[in-house]
Amino acid sequence: MARVQPLSGFPEWSPQERILETHVLTRLREVFALHGFGEIETRVVEPIARLAGDSDAAKEIYTLGRLNAESDADAKLGLHFDLTVPFARYIEERQGQLHFPFRRFQMQKVWRGERPQEGRYREFYQADIDVVGRDSLPEHLEAEVAIVMARALASLPIPAVRMHVNNRQLVEGFYEGVGITDVAGALRSVDKLDKIGAAGVRAELVAKGVAERAADAVLELAKISAPDASFVAAVEDLWETSWRVEDAGALEAAQLKLAGGITSLAALVTAVNSATAFDGADGVAVADLRIARGLDYYTGSVYETFLTGHEDLGSICSGGRYDSLVAGGGFPGVGMSIGVSRLVSRILGAGLASASRSVPSAVLVAVTDEEARPASAGIADRLRARGIACEVSPSAAKFGKQIQYADRRGIPFVWFPNAGEGTSADGQVKDIRNGEQMPADADAWAPPAEDLYPSIVDG
Amino acid sequence: MARVQPLSGFPEWSPQERILETHVLTRLREVFALHGFGEIETRVVEPIARLAGDSDAAKEIYTLGRLNAESDADAKLGLHFDLTVPFARYIEERQGQLHFPFRRFQMQKVWRGERPQEGRYREFYQADIDVVGRDSLPEHLEAEVAIVMARALASLPIPAVRMHVNNRQLVEGFYEGVGITDVAGALRSVDKLDKIGAAGVRAELVAKGVAERAADAVLELAKISAPDASFVAAVEDLWETSWRVEDAGALEAAQLKLAGGITSLAALVTAVNSATAFDGADGVAVADLRIARGLDYYTGSVYETFLTGHEDLGSICSGGRYDSLVAGGGFPGVGMSIGVSRLVSRILGAGLASASRSVPSAVLVAVTDEEARPASAGIADRLRARGIACEVSPSAAKFGKQIQYADRRGIPFVWFPNAGEGTSADGQVKDIRNGEQMPADADAWAPPAEDLYPSIVDG
Repeated sequence: MARVQPLSGFPEWSPQERILETHVLTRLREVFALHGFGEIETRVVEPIARLAGDSDAAKEIYTLGRLNAESDADAKLGLHFDLTVPFARYIEERQGQLHFPFRRFQMQKVWRGERPQEGRYREFYQADIDVVGRDSLPEHLEAEVAIVMARALASLPIPAVRMHVNNRQLVEGFYEGVGITDVAGALRSVDKLDKIGAAGVRAELVAKGVAERAADAVLELAKISAPDASFVAAVEDLWETSWRVEDAGALEAAQLKLAGGITSLAALVTAVNSATAFDGADGVAVADLRIARGLDYYTGSVYETFLTGHEDLGSICSGGRYDSLVAGGGFPGVGMSIGVSRLVSRILGAGLASASRSVPSAVLVAVTDEEARPASAGIADRLRARGIACEVSPSAAKFGKQIQYADRRGIPFVWFPNAGEGTSADGQVKDIRNGEQMPADADAWAPPAEDLYPSIVDG
Repeated sequence: MARVQPLSGFPEWSPQERILETHVLTRLREVFALHGFGEIETRVVEPIARLAGDSDAAKEIYTLGRLNAESDADAKLGLHFDLTVPFARYIEERQGQLHFPFRRFQMQKVWRGERPQEGRYREFYQADIDVVGRDSLPEHLEAEVAIVMARALASLPIPAVRMHVNNRQLVEGFYEGVGITDVAGALRSVDKLDKIGAAGVRAELVAKGVAERAADAVLELAKISAPDASFVAAVEDLWETSWRVEDAGALEAAQLKLAGGITSLAALVTAVNSATAFDGADGVAVADLRIARGLDYYTGSVYETFLTGHEDLGSICSGGRYDSLVAGGGFPGVGMSIGVSRLVSRILGAGLASASRSVPSAVLVAVTDEEARPASAGIADRLRARGIACEVSPSAAKFGKQIQYADRRGIPFVWFPNAGEGTSADGQVKDIRNGEQMPADADAWAPPAEDLYPSIVDG
């Protein structure tokens, strides 16, 4: 038997911590379902050929083998590293049976063989929503997906979030207009602004052959940010004052893209903010022209979401609009993904919230002596019939010991059967937090609503 | 991109099928929690040294590697093939923080590299409950675990189950009494009764050196079965009439074990049946002296559960009492495990039950024209505020098209905003199954309870 030690990068929670994680997953599930997203779950393995399509991800893929392999058939499989690759394959396999636009959520673990010292996990939960169309997808769904995610995050025991949004058409039109030919390469450089700063990005752009005036324009664009459509004037001013390509056709094409992107981004910010003004606060969306998202496949709205006061976490919920989920085209969609485990880890680590107890039980039914155990079990079953979780004391020890059993687990009530003359036939129930005790009827008594289940207490 | 084809042994469900699976998992979760079992979740990987401890399982273990491995550190990890190995490790790691007896449930996927042609899965859900003590564990928990599992199964859309129970002390005492020295080996042979028949088991026992008279006694014992304590007389009769070892000390030891086992098994059958007489039917337990469970580590009650009319599935829920979960001793426990995916597969395949629709939405809010989309979204949000899942139509197509959108997904109601003079300000809601339409208030109207969520319909 190997020595026991935690594996770095593979988080596990205590029972009380797991209640918090389950709460998070349940809330997300509820909000997604309220907005008409149905759940799917995919197998955790995919052919390596499919997983390794993105060469960046290849080095993080866990492959499967067999301890005593008779053939190498299993050696062609790996664990999924996100929920997009398996979702694309699911759509491809079932395109004849699914109804489009298809709305789905998916909450599963994914695996990445990253170096764990960066505070990244090798096994973690993601929660994704996507809407995928057949051949076309209305643009208003780009706002809807952002709204659903903002509401899902607002249902969690975390501070407010800011959702930074941008539009690829806007950025591409602007970049092309100022003479950048390798737009994808420039986007990947701009995506590093947080890591290497403006000077670093500028140097990288210039090294890629971008003209200095274009690099400057790109960095000016990245400075524009507004919580409403006021970004439009700033972008238009910058456009008017920047050097632009001389070819009339190219300029017109760039201008068209830019204008379309501006319109889309303004509509997005307005729609998201009007639907996410929680508790009278401002909406969560900010048009932020620096948001680049390194991935090539985004073609419209892109999103990154930051937790107020915990911006060091990076984006906790990202995504965007893409032209086709399936290689070969025909399945445009828009989706976002929450990194659930990192979020749960922060909630627990920073004490943002915790579960009020470590077990589901609201009541421990005490046992007077072993002969009376069936009577205690009967009381427990009458409580359970009304949805009250309870346990029967495992031993008929002194009542003090039984109370200690409840206390250690955070069980708030202890039920004493046959509590003597003059009380209810079912005995008495004691709130062990304040010592209050009263006769009770097992078919009628209920704990206060906040004690029925473990509750989530803000830190 | 690899060609798309399902992977044998890795089941995946359609969105509507997934609703059924989620229903099953949710019901199990509810019943476990009502009985005070808290959930834990463990990482899916364990050191291979720990997984391969049981040599039988070794050939089925999936090992992990890395596509571009820099070291072979990951090569020492494998995917868990059950939830017992990781639970034991979890207990070992956290023994200082957990409170014993510790009650937990765990519902996760496990992976086994079995040949899929046997109708077995390579990736499947298990649902386990265990109660683990520190140094000791009261025997009444052996009945409680069986009762909780019987109630969990009774909450599912499946036929009634029969839980066949036996006791290892009883069997070992009897086997030793009739002169069998390799009791574990004999148990493994008797475990094959279904596969190779009585003659096959007899031949195998004799080949292992068991005397013919002992083999016959063992096979006679395996024939005894009763839904109550009436098995006691049958076992005692067989014991009295069988040849027994001549050494007085050995005989007395065997007799003691046998008598203890008989008492325990009688108590188990009685307790389980009195707590599981669902809807006036008999309790689910049957004392069945043929139940052997091949695994060496069981030391008390053992359980196998069969689905009426679907006995070909084999046991859908098995387990037993063991002396220590942790190598080195000190953590006695009792647990049972449901093979959830095979059960779900049977429910779906045999049409025992299905979900009433493929999406969570109870209502599709129609859109009159794109300018009026915010009004439709507002109605949807007012419904959602009262827990009614809904979608806003993705397009402002003709109402007939929008009704078709709802119909294809099984969404029962379509809401038409601004339905004209003389109706409610919020419009009209139509039950598209019968065509009934009426004015409705988005802050008051609700679908019938059975339409609020996708319901589970018996087949």
